[in-house]
Amino acid sequence: MAQVMTSPRKRLSPDQRRHQLLEIGSRLFAERPYDEVWIEEVADLAGVSRGLMYHYFSSKRDFFADIIRLESARMVEITAPDTTLPVEHQVSAGLRAYIRYSTDHAHGLRAINRGTMSGDVGIQAILTAEFETQQQRILAALGPDDGADEVTRVAVAGWVSFVRAVCVDWVDRQSISADEVHDLCMRALHGLLRRS
Amino acid sequence: MAQVMTSPRKRLSPDQRRHQLLEIGSRLFAERPYDEVWIEEVADLAGVSRGLMYHYFSSKRDFFADIIRLESARMVEITAPDTTLPVEHQVSAGLRAYIRYSTDHAHGLRAINRGTMSGDVGIQAILTAEFETQQQRILAALGPDDGADEVTRVAVAGWVSFVRAVCVDWVDRQSISADEVHDLCMRALHGLLRRS
Repeated sequence: MAQVMTSPRKRLSPDQRRHQLLEIGSRLFAERPYDEVWIEEVADLAGVSRGLMYHYFSSKRDFFADIIRLESARMVEITAPDTTLPVEHQVSAGLRAYIRYSTDHAHGLRAINRGTMSGDVGIQAILTAEFETQQQRILAALGPDDGADEVTRVAVAGWVSFVRAVCVDWVDRQSISADEVHDLCMRALHGLLRRS
Repeated sequence: MAQVMTSPRKRLSPDQRRHQLLEIGSRLFAERPYDEVWIEEVADLAGVSRGLMYHYFSSKRDFFADIIRLESARMVEITAPDTTLPVEHQVSAGLRAYIRYSTDHAHGLRAINRGTMSGDVGIQAILTAEFETQQQRILAALGPDDGADEVTRVAVAGWVSFVRAVCVDWVDRQSISADEVHDLCMRALHGLLRRS
């Protein structure tokens, strides 16, 4: 009872509280490896009790999955194409946003791609949906003829995975520049879409 | 004691027995989803007791990981390049072998890439080592100048992941031909290695 009275300084609606907790967690998981983030710390930073934390999320895993869902939606928003532009410019702008996002969320990217959470079925489903959105955008930009071709579909799906793999590798090493990452990804796409 | 006398018809050395069990498991895991393979069945097919099975492998997970290790070594062997050929022919031949292998081991490929075992740290380490071998082969074939360039290193690493992603997608759908898969992978590589 003492806790209830001292901790939550601000009175938030459940939606606002949930969002606040997710935002704090998102920042911590971006900055540190998954195993070095404690759910208690999130509660402390939000000024709520640990018990309340578990009222919103049943486990650290569950909390993390909800953050990935939020971040995935954010990623889809920030990479949204300006469909009035030519296809190459649409893809290039989305790619730059993705590369920038990857450097800002290095630890999170690592956790879901090769770390602790890479085998989590729920998280993989979120990523699959995100990939499909990116793939559909490129196919739509290519237009009804090229975009409906099955070889192109496979190629674009592979390219989206390629970009992810390159970014996961790159955030670890930072051995080339963001521009070089962008350019090599665009070269791969050009190669793929050019028919012999 | 009765079991010892009736079951193992052939007297095998421990190495031979272990290899026999791995080969049987490899076949079953290639043909069926991970969750539909039972370790008891492997014991039955080998004509040994379930107890003996657990003498060689501590769990189904462990058994599967050892199969992946064996299969990964096999994959590295069958894709070994003829280094007397031009780089493009070396990569093309290795790629064809990989594509053929992927269709023959569809379920195994699925299990380690998006299924039950995709989060297993030991298995991911085996795959990482395999990827690095493939990457090193291509960089070596490109020669001391191109092969030592950092952008090329990142590009080739990404391309190896691309090939895997395309093959995992492809074995599920089989919507394009093996030749088309080969050609689109080669186009991506050409695009990557061409400098602007």
